[in-house]
Amino acid sequence: MLTVYSPDHLYQNAQFELIDGQLLPPVDTPKRVEAVLEKIEAIKLGEVLPAQEFGLDPILRVHEDSFVNFLQNAWSDWVKEYGEKEALPLNWPARTLRQDKIPEAIDGKLGYYSFDAGTPITAGTWRAAKASANVALTAQQLLKTGEKTVFALCRPPGHHAAKSLYGGYCFLNNAAIATQALLDAGAQRVGILDVDYHHGNGTQDIFYHRNDVLFVSLHADPRLDYPFYLGYEDETGIGQGEGFNFNYPLPWGIRWPEYCQRLKQGIDLMINYSPDVLVVSLGVDTYEHDPIAKFALTTEDYLSLGKMLASINKPTLWVMEGGYAVPEIGNHITNVLIGFEDN
Amino acid sequence: MLTVYSPDHLYQNAQFELIDGQLLPPVDTPKRVEAVLEKIEAIKLGEVLPAQEFGLDPILRVHEDSFVNFLQNAWSDWVKEYGEKEALPLNWPARTLRQDKIPEAIDGKLGYYSFDAGTPITAGTWRAAKASANVALTAQQLLKTGEKTVFALCRPPGHHAAKSLYGGYCFLNNAAIATQALLDAGAQRVGILDVDYHHGNGTQDIFYHRNDVLFVSLHADPRLDYPFYLGYEDETGIGQGEGFNFNYPLPWGIRWPEYCQRLKQGIDLMINYSPDVLVVSLGVDTYEHDPIAKFALTTEDYLSLGKMLASINKPTLWVMEGGYAVPEIGNHITNVLIGFEDN
Repeated sequence: MLTVYSPDHLYQNAQFELIDGQLLPPVDTPKRVEAVLEKIEAIKLGEVLPAQEFGLDPILRVHEDSFVNFLQNAWSDWVKEYGEKEALPLNWPARTLRQDKIPEAIDGKLGYYSFDAGTPITAGTWRAAKASANVALTAQQLLKTGEKTVFALCRPPGHHAAKSLYGGYCFLNNAAIATQALLDAGAQRVGILDVDYHHGNGTQDIFYHRNDVLFVSLHADPRLDYPFYLGYEDETGIGQGEGFNFNYPLPWGIRWPEYCQRLKQGIDLMINYSPDVLVVSLGVDTYEHDPIAKFALTTEDYLSLGKMLASINKPTLWVMEGGYAVPEIGNHITNVLIGFEDN
Repeated sequence: MLTVYSPDHLYQNAQFELIDGQLLPPVDTPKRVEAVLEKIEAIKLGEVLPAQEFGLDPILRVHEDSFVNFLQNAWSDWVKEYGEKEALPLNWPARTLRQDKIPEAIDGKLGYYSFDAGTPITAGTWRAAKASANVALTAQQLLKTGEKTVFALCRPPGHHAAKSLYGGYCFLNNAAIATQALLDAGAQRVGILDVDYHHGNGTQDIFYHRNDVLFVSLHADPRLDYPFYLGYEDETGIGQGEGFNFNYPLPWGIRWPEYCQRLKQGIDLMINYSPDVLVVSLGVDTYEHDPIAKFALTTEDYLSLGKMLASINKPTLWVMEGGYAVPEIGNHITNVLIGFEDN
């Protein structure tokens, strides 16, 4: 299987993030992706290709202009006000506050365009985010030119980033950008299956009104876990999008036998939809020893997961999302891809 | 002038808060109120009385049951999950996220019931917040029994706390709780004048639908400063409350001559309304050297401010809000009260 990778992810290298009420070294460390790359090379999974440059156009097909403009300027605006330390928002337009006003001050903009306090903007954030989108777009283009399956080794991840909102380590929604590019290149219907531990609130937001994308997500019950305020079962799409959004909130501690049953339901939905292309938002923070998550999948289960997804039997674009158990992350990602290919 | 004070504010003594992207020692330090108390005693402003206990009833007249219940249990719920370190939320139901779901997990509840990352919940937060409400209620009762003016030396402050939302160092809205108690005791109309540097978003929220309270606030333009997402001029009340809410967003750097013109407009509104009682949300973070604010009032200007408010000529309840220049805060608060009384 081909992999697409860009070293520019190294430019997103924050010193800290807000976790459990403390500023700690980030969970989303560059080592995550480097570990996956090493494993891919070690097992000779296939060629690793560099990302091509696609410019802003495909990004602006998914994200709002004002948001992209904000991301491009956030660091320099912040530095003018506060100097060269990492940018975190202070407050948010949450309940009872207005969501129709974009403040002029950079602090106000940070809060307006985000939904958490755990996603620092650094000097290299835009460069890394842009490169990550290019990784997904390059993989998408390889698929278009005849590859059956390609792995986009993206970082920063993307599935929490909405039309005009960043958070959860995500700035640009790589899976959504690639999906839109597939549609723009002639695909009639694309399926997105999100198997990250956390709900893909951003991806859901982007396609919630649309019937040309089926979004299916398995994730920790948002009553119990991040992102808390989206990912419930009753979110089924709206307008033309009604019936094109499926959430499977799962309990803490879930093991493969139960997980696999719900995954089978999601796969059946996907088979029934019969997309031209399948995009998988691939997080392996479902692992039993993941440091920030509470599912109980084992290293071997990822082989089975890959094998099951092969049953959808469509051209498949893999987009890297979460997974924070660095020593094991390479095994888990490659197990999924091997399980898929060997089938 | 009588002052009401409770030493229980000392129980809100956080080790840090999120400021400008860093966890720093809190700006809302207990020294603020201790400095005001010392100055009041030094200049013999008048007797300092302890707070009486009023129970939950007057608090529940203003705040939602579920919110008060959350505040009472937040610390113990957090400690069960994370141990005895200060509680900060991680993410918020901001744009595109749902505001109709209350998560079960304590992290999700913290985000649901708050709007910023700068307001730590500690072991003593509820005790301090409750005592602060009792300070305002005790002052309110003294006013009812014939005092012309009473100073409620509250801490934590209150004006950012909405019906079911904490933030900005505020948990319970002391001014709103006292206002409601005045109405419940027979007042027909109460005016709230908020002269804190920051918009009193919580107070506005609580009375926005009502015509028995006139809310007038002078504050930093929310396009430039916290709380960013409320406090605009076009917020004039809704339904029965239409015409009972007035915001004066002011530019950074404003000095007394211009400030006093806008204050005069607010005072004229208040005189025209002719409330049975005037409640003043008194912040002195409008001071030229306040560490987190950008107005330019001088120590002497606070005498003039107090004098101007005397022209409203109504029984007046002063409720302490912000002001972070600790060495000067006692002078500023007492200057306002002396300016008022000497008139």
